[in-house]
Amino acid sequence: MSVLLLNDDDVRTRLDAATAVRAVRGALLAAHEGALHAPPRIHADLGDGRLVFTAGRLCSEELFGFRAYDTLVGAEQLVAVWGSDDGRLRAVVHGDELGARRTGAIGAVAVDAAARPGEIRLGLVGAGTQAWAQLWAIRAVRRVREVAVAARRPERAQAFARRAAGELEVRVRAVRTVEEAVRDHDVVVVATNSDVPVLDADWITPGTHVTTLGPKTVARHEVPASLADRAHVLLTDSLAQATGYAEPHILPTDRLVDLGAVLAKAARGRTDPEQITVFCSVGLAGTDVAVAAALCEEVRRSA
Amino acid sequence: MSVLLLNDDDVRTRLDAATAVRAVRGALLAAHEGALHAPPRIHADLGDGRLVFTAGRLCSEELFGFRAYDTLVGAEQLVAVWGSDDGRLRAVVHGDELGARRTGAIGAVAVDAAARPGEIRLGLVGAGTQAWAQLWAIRAVRRVREVAVAARRPERAQAFARRAAGELEVRVRAVRTVEEAVRDHDVVVVATNSDVPVLDADWITPGTHVTTLGPKTVARHEVPASLADRAHVLLTDSLAQATGYAEPHILPTDRLVDLGAVLAKAARGRTDPEQITVFCSVGLAGTDVAVAAALCEEVRRSA
Repeated sequence: MSVLLLNDDDVRTRLDAATAVRAVRGALLAAHEGALHAPPRIHADLGDGRLVFTAGRLCSEELFGFRAYDTLVGAEQLVAVWGSDDGRLRAVVHGDELGARRTGAIGAVAVDAAARPGEIRLGLVGAGTQAWAQLWAIRAVRRVREVAVAARRPERAQAFARRAAGELEVRVRAVRTVEEAVRDHDVVVVATNSDVPVLDADWITPGTHVTTLGPKTVARHEVPASLADRAHVLLTDSLAQATGYAEPHILPTDRLVDLGAVLAKAARGRTDPEQITVFCSVGLAGTDVAVAAALCEEVRRSA
Repeated sequence: MSVLLLNDDDVRTRLDAATAVRAVRGALLAAHEGALHAPPRIHADLGDGRLVFTAGRLCSEELFGFRAYDTLVGAEQLVAVWGSDDGRLRAVVHGDELGARRTGAIGAVAVDAAARPGEIRLGLVGAGTQAWAQLWAIRAVRRVREVAVAARRPERAQAFARRAAGELEVRVRAVRTVEEAVRDHDVVVVATNSDVPVLDADWITPGTHVTTLGPKTVARHEVPASLADRAHVLLTDSLAQATGYAEPHILPTDRLVDLGAVLAKAARGRTDPEQITVFCSVGLAGTDVAVAAALCEEVRRSA
């Protein structure tokens, strides 16, 4: 069995959202059960930047591997997967699509676990790769009735809406203000790189599930600290990573609940349709490896 | 330009020793000049073992990358190389051949820099992959007049001799004792995994250059501490790595001279044909990346 070398085009055309969501859900459950080794990320200094590695080992799947990315030149990323049964390298996936899509899949698992049941109205704050990947993945867990997208530059929101219509056959409205994207939605995804809050916690309608993907430290945060006062449940995909940053978190980490524990029914998520739930996405290590392995299986099956 | 995916067969058939030696020499000089960033290796714990990364950035070549290997199952290794000009992944080399051959090339550069001039009689202690790679590479820097190889299991030395005759067209004598491989040789390579010294320092003839590849800590060492008393010059390919081990070194690290500095004529190596020189090979980070890049260029050129 030769090594698969896959690029962004392969990810775009061969990875479907349901497969990514299934792989990530498996990894989150494995992490809860102690069957995923996902140590904190490590880095090597290379002068003006770093190489960063996030490694993971999925015992149940007999897989291990890592994702590597840099802060030197913003080079394309690399995910490598080995079988721990035979020690053979199975796949190398390079480019930036896989990372965003696995983050999308993590967000979708959180939506599935914590948003109110039924079809959803989705609000997106930010119109970049991360927002796109969330929409792509959420469609695998919920019927999306309508989508509103707001971006700092309105033309980007419009381009996002056109792309969604073309590629995903989803009707997306570009809206002028963040408030329009936040109010009266079942799920709100905040996917910016903003250092300061882009929304007011009071805009969030009771019953909403909010995902925050961007900065979440005291020094830099895309959501306000007051979000915690309105939220009934704060979830995260990795307690270790969420609490392991050098800078303190803008939300109270002692209230964070592990998404894997909620999936395993060992912890409670939403208990009432009027509650506000917040998912702090940090990117559980090992989920990249799980998604790359699932993609690899898909490609081999169809070969 | 697509990414090259290369395996052990590619390394065996496409990488020639002179190319590997040239790449490693360039990296050693770059390290001396501050143009190679080669931070200490880092690792991620995965339960019963680790993933280990040794990263490097060659500023002059606009390259960066890493080698990854594990202590979990002894899986095949991976070397990845990016261009720092465009951030594109250039090559992924997997398997175990590249690592051994770059170690061979490092050893050959040391032989070229520190052994007496002229053709050599070579003694090998150990008949494994590392000994093989040293012989393979040394041929690129010196004419090898004769080779003696000793191994704990005589049949391995005999197999080594047959393979060398077939693949490298070098006459190798399998000898019965380590002493026969050490005495009266210009270059002696010690490439074992022994915890205890496999040779007596008194066996080393004046004028000999010795390379030690195996364990070199106080707890585990293939060469005796008394080797330092007989050696006039102790060289290493990375002072940072040689002095950075948790366990103290069996040889006095305050006497270690940087091979890159000797190549740049900023430090003295051998000054007399009767001196004994010792090279403590530790595997300068970034040399894997340099050799992988050179192989990659070779493959593209001939494509």
